[in-house]
Amino acid sequence: MKEIDKNDLIYEDETLDDLQLKGIHIIQKKDAFRFGVDAVLLANFANIKRNSTVIDLCTGTGIVPFVIAGKTEARSILGIEIQEDFVDMANRSVKINNLDDRVQFICEDLKNLSALHQVEKADVVTVNPPYKLMSSGIKNPKDKLAIARHEVLCTLEDVIIASRKILKDNGRLYMVHRPERLADILCLMRKHRIEPKRIRLVHPNSQKAPNIVLVEGQRDGGAFLKFEKPLYVYNDEGKYSEEIDKIYGRS
Amino acid sequence: MKEIDKNDLIYEDETLDDLQLKGIHIIQKKDAFRFGVDAVLLANFANIKRNSTVIDLCTGTGIVPFVIAGKTEARSILGIEIQEDFVDMANRSVKINNLDDRVQFICEDLKNLSALHQVEKADVVTVNPPYKLMSSGIKNPKDKLAIARHEVLCTLEDVIIASRKILKDNGRLYMVHRPERLADILCLMRKHRIEPKRIRLVHPNSQKAPNIVLVEGQRDGGAFLKFEKPLYVYNDEGKYSEEIDKIYGRS
Repeated sequence: MKEIDKNDLIYEDETLDDLQLKGIHIIQKKDAFRFGVDAVLLANFANIKRNSTVIDLCTGTGIVPFVIAGKTEARSILGIEIQEDFVDMANRSVKINNLDDRVQFICEDLKNLSALHQVEKADVVTVNPPYKLMSSGIKNPKDKLAIARHEVLCTLEDVIIASRKILKDNGRLYMVHRPERLADILCLMRKHRIEPKRIRLVHPNSQKAPNIVLVEGQRDGGAFLKFEKPLYVYNDEGKYSEEIDKIYGRS
Repeated sequence: MKEIDKNDLIYEDETLDDLQLKGIHIIQKKDAFRFGVDAVLLANFANIKRNSTVIDLCTGTGIVPFVIAGKTEARSILGIEIQEDFVDMANRSVKINNLDDRVQFICEDLKNLSALHQVEKADVVTVNPPYKLMSSGIKNPKDKLAIARHEVLCTLEDVIIASRKILKDNGRLYMVHRPERLADILCLMRKHRIEPKRIRLVHPNSQKAPNIVLVEGQRDGGAFLKFEKPLYVYNDEGKYSEEIDKIYGRS
């Protein structure tokens, strides 16, 4: 295998960031959407068995597929993203990490169901969708950050319809979102026959309201919902909690 | 007003229990369903303004109306219960507490919508419904405890339909239930246009999964859901938390 000069793959307005996970790095824009705790929590919440196939929707620069590649023995991980710039960055990150055999990215609109029909069905779908409703104050709808954060190009329902389309029977959907949208999430999942099975709330600390929700659903699953114990990002001393340290590989 | 001899109102198989709240007492059977923390948490979660009218569904021996009578300035509180024995006990508790001017109980099936139509519409509905699905292992469906705990005589959807029927426009529904049923609760509320507005999860302590959920909905309300900070029953030292002590009037 010929040696890649990493510098050829990283542009001037970009950084190469270390995921602190088996040496995996990811290319990100200096001034655009950068991955946060949400994506890492999602990749950890997902229960991914050996040899399973995974599709990550709204993948952005590919953080969720790269964390899953590092943490699990998934056979293949496909990221789908509508913004070409991000797909280009994610594909260069694949090369830098020599993950061509397990990770790939395609540029596609998840609302294009006939295109999704061509994709091999997955055991697991992960998604960190835009959180905010279209209506909530966008200045420039072409702005990349706005597209990643607001329901400009896809709604929560679009994401759930696409997930159903690409999941195998009884396959699992894992979503990270905001607790304020939980009624929308649960009702839309039920509407499209992805049964909510497991919920975990993430709180800044034990005294604060949750600000992140992790939801697992099963395509055509039976009704039984399990609530897990809460995840606190910081402990009572204001330091990262043990569990967060573990997720980030720091303990 | 003539003095009531309390002993005439309490039968041999019953106890008169002190709510530790403005001297209010409640009659309960020694061996049947006895109120627990759920009812007290529900009465505290409900936001009840001065002079408002309240209806408590599945009221049992009336614990929720009596706590609301003690804690708020509600003008009138009506408890509706299908089991005659419980209604009889609740009405005797009204006499013992001299609350005839504010609290009353009627024996009615909440599925009987034409009967509910006769009832004056309420600002607030509270309900602590049977938690368990009909299917989950009942031995004797005539058993009073089974009726109070399982969906023998009414389902969650019956409760929500009845709530919509008796609520004023924009009136609030407050429900206590199990987190495992949250998808059912939110989806059925939406189906019957009672919009979920506020959720609070109650945990045995900060390290455990929630085992009680409190939900506020608004009849024809707009979509905005607020998650509150968690309520822990015990603190890290294994004692009742400050908030629980406050709810029970112990601090």
